[in-house]
Amino acid sequence: MKFFSFWRSLASFRVRIALNLKNVPTEVVFVDLDANAHRDPEYRRINPQMALPALVEDDGTTLFQSLAISNISTRNTPPRRCCRRYQRPRPRPCAGADGRLRGTSLLVPRVRRYLDHELNLRDTQQAAWRRHWIVETLAALEGHLAGHKDTGKFCHADAPTLADICMVGHVTVAVTQQIDLKIYPTVKRIFETAMALPEFARAHPLAQPDTPEAMRKS
Amino acid sequence: MKFFSFWRSLASFRVRIALNLKNVPTEVVFVDLDANAHRDPEYRRINPQMALPALVEDDGTTLFQSLAISNISTRNTPPRRCCRRYQRPRPRPCAGADGRLRGTSLLVPRVRRYLDHELNLRDTQQAAWRRHWIVETLAALEGHLAGHKDTGKFCHADAPTLADICMVGHVTVAVTQQIDLKIYPTVKRIFETAMALPEFARAHPLAQPDTPEAMRKS
Repeated sequence: MKFFSFWRSLASFRVRIALNLKNVPTEVVFVDLDANAHRDPEYRRINPQMALPALVEDDGTTLFQSLAISNISTRNTPPRRCCRRYQRPRPRPCAGADGRLRGTSLLVPRVRRYLDHELNLRDTQQAAWRRHWIVETLAALEGHLAGHKDTGKFCHADAPTLADICMVGHVTVAVTQQIDLKIYPTVKRIFETAMALPEFARAHPLAQPDTPEAMRKS
Repeated sequence: MKFFSFWRSLASFRVRIALNLKNVPTEVVFVDLDANAHRDPEYRRINPQMALPALVEDDGTTLFQSLAISNISTRNTPPRRCCRRYQRPRPRPCAGADGRLRGTSLLVPRVRRYLDHELNLRDTQQAAWRRHWIVETLAALEGHLAGHKDTGKFCHADAPTLADICMVGHVTVAVTQQIDLKIYPTVKRIFETAMALPEFARAHPLAQPDTPEAMRKS
C-alpha cells in the first residue's frame, strides 16, 4: 500500500494516526505541497484533484479523503488486530468529525487563497478569520463533550475513535495558533490523553521524515 | 421518533431523503430558523448547539448531524426493509460527501454572517463567494464521477446511496443560484435521476409543509 503524505497536511495527519492505530504497513510517498509537487503530472495521475492524502492499495484501488481512508483502509488486515485499538465511532462522537466539518474546512489553503487573492484581506483580517473558526469549533467540541455520559478518557468512552483523530487535528491547529485551551478543559484533557499515545505522537506534523529540520520537535 | 426539520435547511433535506428511502416513520417538528425558533429554550434543550436537524429516538437518544442521522437512524427498523433501497456507500462515492465538505460548509449561515458583519462584504462579493464554492464543488464532483467505473445510474452503481443524498443537496443550491449544469453532464444526469425518485422529490425544500406558500413548487 502506498500512502501519499505531507508533514503539515492536517488530512495526512489524520490518516497517519488511523494507519498507526490499525497497524497498517504502508510505503509513504512524500508530496511537497510547498514545492507544488501535488501539481506534478506524476501525482495528478494518482489524484486528478491534486489533493492530499491518497492511498493506493495493492490492487490499484485509490482512495482520497482522509475520513474514507481512515474508515476502510484496513479491510485487508485481520479484523481482530485492527479492531483492537480502533473502533468505528458511535454516532455522538461525530462531535469530532463535526469539528472537522465546522472549522477545518474554513482554514484550508484554497479558502486562504480566496481570502488573499479575491478578497484582498489584510494579514490581521486573515488572522482574525482563522482565530474565529478555530475558537468556534473548540467551543462546539467542548459543548458536545463536557459532562456527556458517553465521554470517557476519549471522545467516546475509553478507546480512541475517528472522533479523536479529527479532534486532535483541529486542536493541533489551535495550539499552533497559540490559542489557550484552558477554557476548553474536556477538549484539553482528551487531546493530551490522545497525544500521549505513541500512535498519535508518531503521526504529529512536526515529527515526520519530511518535516523541515527547523520546524522539527526537539 | 421526532425529527426536527426546516424546509430550506440543506441538512434537513438530506435527512428527509434518507428517512424516505429507509421508510422510517417520524413525527416532524418544524423549527423556523427565520423566526429564530432554534434559539428558543425549548429547542436548546434538544440541541444546545441550536443547529438543525435533530432526531430524537423513542428511547430518548438524540442525534445531530445529518450524516450521522442518515447513517444510523434505522437501527430499530427491520434490516431487510431498510436495506432494500438504501445502502451504505462504498468508499469512492464519498465524492458526494466530499462535495458536502468542500462546498456546503462555506455557504452556511454562520459563514454568511461573518462575511456580512465582520468583513462587510458587498452583495456582489458575497454572490461571487457563493458562486465560486458552488462551481468548484460541481467541478470536483464531475471530476470524481465522470467516466469512473463505479459510476452508474447513481454516484455509486445503480441504487441511491449517501453520496447521492449529499450531491443532490449541493446541486439544488446550484440550481437555486441559476448555475447552468450543462458542463457537468454526469452530475446533471445523476441529479435528475435521483430527483425523479419519489423519496427524493418528496424531500425537496420547496415541497414541505412549512415551505412558505409563495416559494412552493407549482
